[in-house]
Amino acid sequence: MRQYNLCILGFGNVGRALVRQLQAKQAELREKYAIEWRITGVATRRMGWIADPDGLDPDALLAGQMPAQQSTISDVREWLEAAREDVLFELTSTDPHSGQPAREHVRTALERGSYVITANKGAVVHGYQDLQALAEANGTKFLFDAAVMAGAPVFSLFRDALPAVNILRFRGLLNATSNVILEEMEQGKSYDEAVSTAQALGIAETDPSLDVDGWDAMLKLCAISTVLLDVPLQPQDVQRTGIRGLLSEQVQAARAAGHPYKLAATLERTENGVVARVQPEQIALGDPLAAASDAFMLLAHFEMDMIPGLTMILHVPGEGTAGPDVTAYDVLADFLRAVRA
Amino acid sequence: MRQYNLCILGFGNVGRALVRQLQAKQAELREKYAIEWRITGVATRRMGWIADPDGLDPDALLAGQMPAQQSTISDVREWLEAAREDVLFELTSTDPHSGQPAREHVRTALERGSYVITANKGAVVHGYQDLQALAEANGTKFLFDAAVMAGAPVFSLFRDALPAVNILRFRGLLNATSNVILEEMEQGKSYDEAVSTAQALGIAETDPSLDVDGWDAMLKLCAISTVLLDVPLQPQDVQRTGIRGLLSEQVQAARAAGHPYKLAATLERTENGVVARVQPEQIALGDPLAAASDAFMLLAHFEMDMIPGLTMILHVPGEGTAGPDVTAYDVLADFLRAVRA
Repeated sequence: MRQYNLCILGFGNVGRALVRQLQAKQAELREKYAIEWRITGVATRRMGWIADPDGLDPDALLAGQMPAQQSTISDVREWLEAAREDVLFELTSTDPHSGQPAREHVRTALERGSYVITANKGAVVHGYQDLQALAEANGTKFLFDAAVMAGAPVFSLFRDALPAVNILRFRGLLNATSNVILEEMEQGKSYDEAVSTAQALGIAETDPSLDVDGWDAMLKLCAISTVLLDVPLQPQDVQRTGIRGLLSEQVQAARAAGHPYKLAATLERTENGVVARVQPEQIALGDPLAAASDAFMLLAHFEMDMIPGLTMILHVPGEGTAGPDVTAYDVLADFLRAVRA
Repeated sequence: MRQYNLCILGFGNVGRALVRQLQAKQAELREKYAIEWRITGVATRRMGWIADPDGLDPDALLAGQMPAQQSTISDVREWLEAAREDVLFELTSTDPHSGQPAREHVRTALERGSYVITANKGAVVHGYQDLQALAEANGTKFLFDAAVMAGAPVFSLFRDALPAVNILRFRGLLNATSNVILEEMEQGKSYDEAVSTAQALGIAETDPSLDVDGWDAMLKLCAISTVLLDVPLQPQDVQRTGIRGLLSEQVQAARAAGHPYKLAATLERTENGVVARVQPEQIALGDPLAAASDAFMLLAHFEMDMIPGLTMILHVPGEGTAGPDVTAYDVLADFLRAVRA
C-alpha cells in the first residue's frame, strides 16, 4: 500500500468533484491499485494557502469549512513544502496568452520531484517542452489529459495505446459552447439569444469570448500539435476565426441544406511543420466531423501512417452540471497513470 | 539497447505485413524504444516449424524463400526451444468453438515466460482467464488488441488510458463484412450478389458464415465482456441472429426511411452479470451506432460510470488490401506495449 499526499490548487467545481470521486473510489483504489491518499493542501485565491501534512478533512473541505491559512506561507513553494506533497493537482483557470501562473505552479512542483496533473491548457501550450523535460530529468510525470476533451484520453491514447504512429492529419470539434450556440441559432435564435441560452445551461462563461472567438479550440489544437505531432505550435501560428460573425439565417440555411456549420479545428502535417486553423465550416456528409450528430458531442479525428482513420467522440453531459465530474475523472485517471508507471 | 527474438506462428497476410512494418520502423524502434529484433522462428501448417536462433532473413521470408524445417522439431514447444523466443506472435486463424490450437500455442509460450501477442479471438474468448493468470504468474504479458477492431486499441484504451471506470453498456458495429453486404443490398443487390461483391473486394471469406451469421461479432462481444467488464461470457450466453435472413427490399426500405439495418452488438450490465446480443437492427438517428456513416467504419461505444459516453470509430481500408497492415500495426503496437511495461 502506498500513501500519497495530494495538493489541490484551485478549488472550484472540478476540485470539489475530484475530492468526491477520490472518496467514492477510495475502496477501489485501495483494493485494485494499492493506493491510499490524503489531502494535505488546498489553495485558492480567496482562501489562500492551506496546508496540513497530517491531512485535511475532505468532508469539511467540501462543506466549505476551511482551516485558516498559516501566516508563514506566502507562495506556492512554501505551501508545497508545508503540505509535503507527492502530487499537485493544478486546477486554476487558463490564461491563454502566457499560461501563467499555472506554469510556475507546475514547475515548482516538478522541481520538487512531485507528480503534476493539470487541466490547464495554457500551461501545456506555453510550457510543455520545458515542463516535460523537467519532469523527465526529475524522474516524475507531468500529465494533462483533462486539458483537451476531458473524459476522452486523447493524450494517453497515443502515449500508451498507440505507440509508433505518426499523425498526418487531425480534425476536431473541440469546443462545446460553440456547438451549443450554433445549434440554438439553427433553431432560430439570434447569436445573442443563443449565447444567453448557453450561459443559462451552465455551458458558456459570463464572458464567452474565449469560446466563441475560437481561443479555446485554438489552444487545444496547439496542445495536440505540440504533444502528439511533436511540432510546437503557438497561438499566433494558428489561423483563427470564431463564430461571432455568423448570422442566424446563414446557420439555419446551412442546416436545412444538410451541411451545418461547426467550429472546426484542423491540423495538417506538411513538409515544413503543420498548417493549423480554427474556423466555422459547413460540414459535408462524409467529413469525419459529421459523425457528431448533436451539440453535446466533442470529436477528435486522427489520420495516421499506420491507421487510415480513428475518430473519438465524447458525449458530454447535457446540462453542464456533470461537466466538472468528467473533468475530475480525467484528472483522477492521470493520477492513477502517473503512480502506476 | 534490448534485442528480442521474435517467432511468428501463422505466416499469412498479417504475418507478412508485420515483417514489413518491423523493417519499415526498424530505425524508429532503435532510436525511440531502444529495441532491436530478429526473427528466429516462422511456422505454418504448410511450411512446418522453421527456427534459427541466429535469425532468419526477413527479405527471404517475404520472398517465400523458406529454409527447410529441422527434422528434430515436431511441435510448438520444440519449435520455441529451437528459436529461443522472447516474443510469440500467434497469428493462426480463429476457431470459434474452442479457440484451439491457438490457446495451446499461447499457453506454451507463456509457460516459457515469453511475451505473447495474438490476433486470435478464439484464444481470448475461450482462454482469457487462464492465460492472463499464467502470464501474471510468469511475469510476462498476454496482449491481443488486434482481436477486436484491429487498429483501434479497444483493450489498451481501458487498461492504460481509462483506469478505474466501470462500463455499464456497450454498443458496437464489429463486423466489416456484414456492413459491406448490407450496403450492397441497400443498392439493390440480392443477398447472394452482395456476398459475391464483398468476396471480390477481399472483405468476405470464401465461406462467409462466420461473418454473416454473427459469429465474428459475437466472439468479439464475448472478448469485450470477459476482458473489459470482467464478466466471462461464452458464445452460448449471447443471443445471436445474423443477417442471412434479411431481404433486399427490406434493407432498401429501411435505408430509404433513414433507419438502415446494421448488425449491432450490445452488452448491458445487469445485477446478474450482462445481457448480450448480436442481431440486425434498424439504427435510429440518435443511436450511437448512427455515427458510422458508411460501410467501411467499425464502431465501439461505451457508457461508463464516470463518462456518459465515448465512441471510437475505426475507418477501415476500403478495398481490403490494407486490412492486414492495420492488424499488423496493432500487433506491433502490442509488442511495444509489452516490452515497455
